Amino acid sequence: MRTIPDVFKAVQSENAHFGIVPIENSTEGVVTHTLDMLLKSELRICGEILLRIQHNLLSNARDLASVRVVYAHEQALAQCRNWLNRYIPQAEYKAVSSNGAAADLAVKEPDAAAIAGQMASDFYGLSILAAGIEDEASNTTRFLVLGNQDLAATGDDKTSLVVSSNNHPGLLYELLEPISRHNINMTRLESRPSRQGIWEYVFFIDIEGHHSDKNVQSLLQEMQDIATLFKVLGSYPVGKVF
Amino acid sequence: MRTIPDVFKAVQSENAHFGIVPIENSTEGVVTHTLDMLLKSELRICGEILLRIQHNLLSNARDLASVRVVYAHEQALAQCRNWLNRYIPQAEYKAVSSNGAAADLAVKEPDAAAIAGQMASDFYGLSILAAGIEDEASNTTRFLVLGNQDLAATGDDKTSLVVSSNNHPGLLYELLEPISRHNINMTRLESRPSRQGIWEYVFFIDIEGHHSDKNVQSLLQEMQDIATLFKVLGSYPVGKVF
Repeated sequence: MRTIPDVFKAVQSENAHFGIVPIENSTEGVVTHTLDMLLKSELRICGEILLRIQHNLLSNARDLASVRVVYAHEQALAQCRNWLNRYIPQAEYKAVSSNGAAADLAVKEPDAAAIAGQMASDFYGLSILAAGIEDEASNTTRFLVLGNQDLAATGDDKTSLVVSSNNHPGLLYELLEPISRHNINMTRLESRPSRQGIWEYVFFIDIEGHHSDKNVQSLLQEMQDIATLFKVLGSYPVGKVF
Repeated sequence: MRTIPDVFKAVQSENAHFGIVPIENSTEGVVTHTLDMLLKSELRICGEILLRIQHNLLSNARDLASVRVVYAHEQALAQCRNWLNRYIPQAEYKAVSSNGAAADLAVKEPDAAAIAGQMASDFYGLSILAAGIEDEASNTTRFLVLGNQDLAATGDDKTSLVVSSNNHPGLLYELLEPISRHNINMTRLESRPSRQGIWEYVFFIDIEGHHSDKNVQSLLQEMQDIATLFKVLGSYPVGKVF
């Protein structure tokens, strides 16, 4: 699919059983577009996948010094920012819609390069000028599996929820206090503008456990009582790194 | 300046007394690049500016139906996402380095449009095909003023800090608990990957008050004792909307 909303649509319209979207990268942080889509969508999160991401500089230019422009998705540019500034400071960095689109442009312009995976090198017939150019050796992207079903507990699960309330000082602390009191581990917290009122936020929270676990159930009930917006996005098995 | 790091550099090298960088938009959320720069920089935050941002669709195309591609900075594209999907679904949306660069491209391609302010329309000789296309009528961007001095308290101040500690369940709650206990209002919390360890985060926190206020002082001391990374980015007067 070309875009993140297209993946959501394909699963919503049941043209696909599941969809996979990026949610967060260990170097560059959250994919805000996915968070915004989750807020509006009725889909459930059915799983997470952790993938090591290696980036390469693909180009038909003679060497690094001849590269005048680097195309890539903005996330890939950000994940390789330090390497780019160090090894090809002379180049202009241009964000495009995907790394595939970037490779396509690099084929057409002799002094252009693209950041992409190794497969793109074969597919587009571009040389690998430099391999493994990501700033963090452990660069990993977390993907979510979207679907329509509610999964049963496996004993090693995570629950994602989104919660909001009328903005007032101490709101976030109030929302987090029950999590701590129930001895539940919060593995992630992310805030996004609510798009409802200016400087109002929704909070995306990941906790350990399944929504059918007794203590999680009682926590969720408490949070729902405080919140004006409350939605369980899904409970799903904790992912392993591939 | 062409980029956010260029603004930081100009102030650090004392080629400029102050620099202004975007930090957050009410529709689209934080500017992650600025947060990452603040983490590494020795500059102080000396103020904040809130600016209403109006976007326009600039083009020499005959009408909306003739537009085949829309260029803009990724933030501008995101702030106008719903409008674009509704009124020019046929177009391709391409992220470029700035709205100025977008206008430059729209001048050269007859079926292209750019998202930019009204000033760009005059400067580049482009017609305004549609005005006020931002998704949120109250679309506002918060800018930070960067400098080298530490400002005295004015009585209506805000303090920004960045804090982190070794990742463990409950860490964030531990960091926030003293804020609540000191009855200090937290106005903002944002997390970013630490770039030190995988899935480790630094937290950017804004609180009300000046770092020389007694209760703020005692809070900061407590947080510093818990944290492995702790930095006060600055205390500065609370901004008003222009």
